[in-house]
Amino acid sequence: MKSYSKYLWFNTSNKLELINITPEVNKALRESRIKEGLCLVNAMHITASVFINDDEEGLHEDFRLWLEKLAPYNVNSYKHNLTGEDNAHAHLKRTIMGRQIVVAVTKGKLDFGPWEQIFYGEFDGQRRKRALIKIIGE
Amino acid sequence: MKSYSKYLWFNTSNKLELINITPEVNKALRESRIKEGLCLVNAMHITASVFINDDEEGLHEDFRLWLEKLAPYNVNSYKHNLTGEDNAHAHLKRTIMGRQIVVAVTKGKLDFGPWEQIFYGEFDGQRRKRALIKIIGE
Amino acid sequence: MKSYSKYLWFNTSNKLELINITPEVNKALRESRIKEGLCLVNAMHITASVFINDDEEGLHEDFRLWLEKLAPYNVNSYKHNLTGEDNAHAHLKRTIMGRQIVVAVTKGKLDFGPWEQIFYGEFDGQRRKRALIKIIGE
Repeated sequence: MKSYSKYLWFNTSNKLELINITPEVNKALRESRIKEGLCLVNAMHITASVFINDDEEGLHEDFRLWLEKLAPYNVNSYKHNLTGEDNAHAHLKRTIMGRQIVVAVTKGKLDFGPWEQIFYGEFDGQRRKRALIKIIGE
Repeated sequence: MKSYSKYLWFNTSNKLELINITPEVNKALRESRIKEGLCLVNAMHITASVFINDDEEGLHEDFRLWLEKLAPYNVNSYKHNLTGEDNAHAHLKRTIMGRQIVVAVTKGKLDFGPWEQIFYGEFDGQRRKRALIKIIGE
Repeated sequence: MKSYSKYLWFNTSNKLELINITPEVNKALRESRIKEGLCLVNAMHITASVFINDDEEGLHEDFRLWLEKLAPYNVNSYKHNLTGEDNAHAHLKRTIMGRQIVVAVTKGKLDFGPWEQIFYGEFDGQRRKRALIKIIGE
């Protein structure tokens, strides 16, 4: 069994950003030389996500509005913010979007359907944060 | 390390369907001859899910109503639908239900609790779509 | 390839509890002697979750209130409860929080960011229930 790890660093300009990291994951997969296995990609921070969806700008705007409705910023309404943070909402938004994805590796490629793209979802940005790519297989 | 891939095809009669695919995953596991490892099952389309829950009709009706409340069809309220689609809601519903599940394989079986069953959740059906089963181990 | 399985048992005092199981997962990882690979942790029941977030009491109270808003107990409003159960809400809460997490194992450790902690989320407790740790690698 082979394994390969790679860390991606982010420091977004905005508090909330959705960034297509599919090229970085493809690059890591080539570097790993793994042909059959599993590829885990996860946020290493608890106010960020890694998820798979469509790379379509309108949809990303829909995600932003929808997440704000389900988990509003609303700084004074959360107990977590009594610690001095203002990011309770970001913990909730990340929960809806998910911490990690696992993708099959088949014949040296991410075994994807036609529209699948991998995103890093930042909900409390303007800080240095990381995502992890871990690939195991043969 | 061994690995095994299998694709399941769907073309549902209804736009929204929840289909128990546990028998298909068990079949793939037997075909793989893998005894210890991990089994990934994921939707290959971004308006569908694979998730684990109970095979109980009332609960499935509850899921439908609940998802419609959290992520309504509401065709005119999404920017994504300006592309000519009407399925923005299905991208959001799939986000709540999740893209993939990972199940332990122990002694040649899916290592499940008493009520766990695997479902393909279709939220924009009446099209040909796929799910992927990938098993790795020994 | 090596693999290691361990089952954690719970019987919570309250219907809803969030329990930090990171020490148990670290212990299982040491027992496995696996240095590079993947670690799956999942609830084996469909009204419970395993998720990663912050071990901060205020945030946990925020999660409780937020989940109650998104998926209220509301016993008479669910078809599933016609079966004699009162836990439909717990199936929905677990759906939001997720069934499983997958963590990279690197140099014999859970490859975690600074605040990541693993929780068992119980939404229909006061019953004996299990979570599963499965580690594969080398």
